Amino acid sequence: MNPIFADLPTTVFEVMSALARETGAVNLGQGFPDDPGPADVRAKAAEAVVEGWNQYPPMMGLPELRRGIAHHYARWQGLDLDPDTEVMVTSGATEALAGALMALIEPGDEVVLFEPMYDAYLPLVRRAGGVPRFVTLTPPHFRLTEEALSAAFSPRTKVVLLNNPLNPAATVFPDEDLERLAGFCRRYDAIALCDEVWEHVVFDGRRHRPLMAFPGMRERTVKIGSAGKIFSLTGWKVGFVMAAPSLMRGLAKAHQFLTFTTPPNLQAAVAYGLAKDDAYFEGMRADFARARDRFASGLTDLGFSVLPSAGTYFLNLDIAPLGESDDVAFCERLVRRHGVAAIPVSAFYAHRPVRTIVRFCFAKRDDTLDRALERLRGLA
Amino acid sequence: MNPIFADLPTTVFEVMSALARETGAVNLGQGFPDDPGPADVRAKAAEAVVEGWNQYPPMMGLPELRRGIAHHYARWQGLDLDPDTEVMVTSGATEALAGALMALIEPGDEVVLFEPMYDAYLPLVRRAGGVPRFVTLTPPHFRLTEEALSAAFSPRTKVVLLNNPLNPAATVFPDEDLERLAGFCRRYDAIALCDEVWEHVVFDGRRHRPLMAFPGMRERTVKIGSAGKIFSLTGWKVGFVMAAPSLMRGLAKAHQFLTFTTPPNLQAAVAYGLAKDDAYFEGMRADFARARDRFASGLTDLGFSVLPSAGTYFLNLDIAPLGESDDVAFCERLVRRHGVAAIPVSAFYAHRPVRTIVRFCFAKRDDTLDRALERLRGLA
Ligand SMILES: CSCCC(=O)C(=O)O
Ligand SMILES: CSCCC(=O)C(=O)O
Repeated sequence: MNPIFADLPTTVFEVMSALARETGAVNLGQGFPDDPGPADVRAKAAEAVVEGWNQYPPMMGLPELRRGIAHHYARWQGLDLDPDTEVMVTSGATEALAGALMALIEPGDEVVLFEPMYDAYLPLVRRAGGVPRFVTLTPPHFRLTEEALSAAFSPRTKVVLLNNPLNPAATVFPDEDLERLAGFCRRYDAIALCDEVWEHVVFDGRRHRPLMAFPGMRERTVKIGSAGKIFSLTGWKVGFVMAAPSLMRGLAKAHQFLTFTTPPNLQAAVAYGLAKDDAYFEGMRADFARARDRFASGLTDLGFSVLPSAGTYFLNLDIAPLGESDDVAFCERLVRRHGVAAIPVSAFYAHRPVRTIVRFCFAKRDDTLDRALERLRGLA
Repeated sequence: MNPIFADLPTTVFEVMSALARETGAVNLGQGFPDDPGPADVRAKAAEAVVEGWNQYPPMMGLPELRRGIAHHYARWQGLDLDPDTEVMVTSGATEALAGALMALIEPGDEVVLFEPMYDAYLPLVRRAGGVPRFVTLTPPHFRLTEEALSAAFSPRTKVVLLNNPLNPAATVFPDEDLERLAGFCRRYDAIALCDEVWEHVVFDGRRHRPLMAFPGMRERTVKIGSAGKIFSLTGWKVGFVMAAPSLMRGLAKAHQFLTFTTPPNLQAAVAYGLAKDDAYFEGMRADFARARDRFASGLTDLGFSVLPSAGTYFLNLDIAPLGESDDVAFCERLVRRHGVAAIPVSAFYAHRPVRTIVRFCFAKRDDTLDRALERLRGLA
C-alpha cells in the first residue's frame, strides 16, 4: 500500500455524515443543501436519461455543455474561452483537481498551499510527487500577505493552489490579494490552480473575480468550477476545467486516465441550466444569504460568537469564548449529545491547526436550521 | 507538465469516434452499443433524478447498490463479499483502476502487465511510480505460459494487472492459466488487480471465472466490474471495486481523492438492474452472440479472415492475408475512404506491437452491422 493514501483517516465530511445518519442528528457538517435542487434541471436530466444518449460522450465533454460553459463565463466573468480547446468537463471538481495535479507536477516540484485547505489537497499534491510549501492564513481575515507569499514561493514553485471563495473560512479574497498572488505567479513562472467552485455563492453584492482575469494570468491559470455547487446538486459530480490550450493538452490526458468521461445525461441538464439568466443566479444567492442570516442571527441570539460569512455554504463559530480549546471534542459532543453535526475546522490544517473554530453548513431549509438552533440552545 | 501524461497522444478510441462523427463513418471503433440500453433501468434513473436524492451519497456508494453488488456476485460467481467492508462504487472502471494503482503502488514497485492491454494501463502504472514488466501474449490463443510468467515475476512484483475477458483479443483465459497466474501471485505475495469489466459478455456457454475465486486469491485480489458494460450504458460511468477489507481501506482513500462519490441517481438504477434474474443476463449474452455471428459470417462471406471471439463486444480481423502490414494505415483508409471506423490493435501494445490485427465492435443493431458490411465489400 502506498502510505501517502493508506495512512490517512476517512475524510471528516464522510465521518460526520455517517454519524449524523446513525444518530439522527441534524446534519450541518458536509456541504450540501437539503432541498431537492432546481426541478427543471432535474427534469432535463431525466429526459436525457430516457430519450437521450447514454453511451460514451466525447472525452472532453458534450459540445453543447462546453459551449455553454464558455458562454456562461463570458457573460458573467468576462472570460474569453474557446470551447473546443480551453474547456473540459470532468467527473466533479475533485477529479479536476486530482487530474490537474497529476498532469502538472513532476516529482520534486514545489506546490504552494494555503491553510486552511480542503482535506484532499495535500494528499493529492504528495501523491503526485509535489513538495508542499504552506502558507498559514490567519482568522478572521485570512489575507494573502506579501511576507507570507515571499516565504513560500521559490524558483522551484511549479503550482500554487488557491481556493477562492475559501472553504471553510467563508471569505472572498480581495482584489488586492489576488493581484499580489498574480504577481508572484508571474515572477516565479508558476501555474495557479484555482479551485473556484464557490464562485457563484457570494453574498452582499460581492462579485467573484477569477484569478485568470488578472494581468498575465490567462496563460498560467487552471480554473476549476462545479455544476454541483452552482445548482445545489452536489451528487451529480459534474465539474469544469478551463485553461489555455498549452495547459489543457496535459490536463485532458489526466482526465482520459482518471475517469475518461462524465455521464452525458447529467451534462445535458447542466448545459440547460447554465443558460439561465442572471436573475436566476441572483435569486439563488439571495436565498442562500437569507439562510445565512437566519442561522447567524439565531446563533447570535443564543449567545454564540459567529464569524462573518462572505461566501460558500458555511458559517463559523468561534468556540474560544465558550472556554473550548478542542474543536474535535466539541463536535463529537455536539453530534452525539446534542444532535447537530458540524465540522471541526482543524481538519483543514496540515501543520498549524486552529482549534477553536467550528463550521456549520447553512444551505438548508428553514425548518432544518430552526431545528438545529433549538438543539444548540443552552450551549453558549 | 509531467511528461508521463503530457507526451501521450489522445486515446485512439476518442480519435476514431471523432473521425467517425466527422466523416459520417459507421463507428465500430470505440466499444459501445448503439441501442439505447434497457428502458426500465433508464426509467429508474429518471425517477431517481426527479424524486430521489441528488446530493452526495455515502462515499463508498449507496448502501442498496453495495448490497446489490454483493448479492449479484454471490448468486452468479459464488463470491462471498461483505457489502459494508468489501464493496465500493466508483465513477466508472477507469477510476477504479486509477485509484487502485495509486493506492497499491509505491515508487519502484514492479507491476506485471500483459500485452495487448487497454491503453490506460501503462501510463497509470508509470504515473503511480510503478515499474512495468511486460508479458507479451501471442495470437491466436493469448495464453499465460509458465515461461512468460517466470520471466516477469520477481520478488519486487507488487501487482499483476489482468484483463479477463481480454480486450481486444476477445479471449477468455482458461482455468488452467488462471490457476497458473494465481500460483505466481501466491508465490511472490503479489496483488492481482483484475479488470473483469467484460465478465458478463462471454459466449457459447462459457462461464467467467473470477481470479478472486481461486485458492489463496480471496485476500490478494482487487476485482473491478462495470455497470456500463453490464447494462450497455457505457456513458453512465458506474464501476465497482471488490476486495478484502485490508486492501479496501487503501482503495477507499484513493476514491476519496479521485472523485469522492458517484451520482446517486445512476447508482439507484444500477441497484435495480443488478437484481434482474439470470434469464435477463442470458438474454443479453444471446443477443450479443447473435450480433457477433451476423457480423462474423458477413465478414467471412466477404472473404475476410476473422479471428474467433469468445467474449467482449469485439471481433478481430487478421489483415495479413490482405497483404497489409500496417494496421494504423489500414484503419485510416477504412474510416476515410470506406466509411467504417475500427481500432488498430497495435494501440494495445507498449513495446512489441502486432501490426496486422484490426478490431471491430459488433455490439450494434443489425442495420448498423449490415451497413458496415456493405461498405467493406470488395476490400478482401
Ligand atoms: C466532498 S464532501 C465535502 C463537501 C464540501 O465541499 C465541504 O463540506 O467542504
Ligand atoms: C473508454 S473508451 C474505450 C472503450 C473500450 O473499452 C474499448 O473500446 O476498448
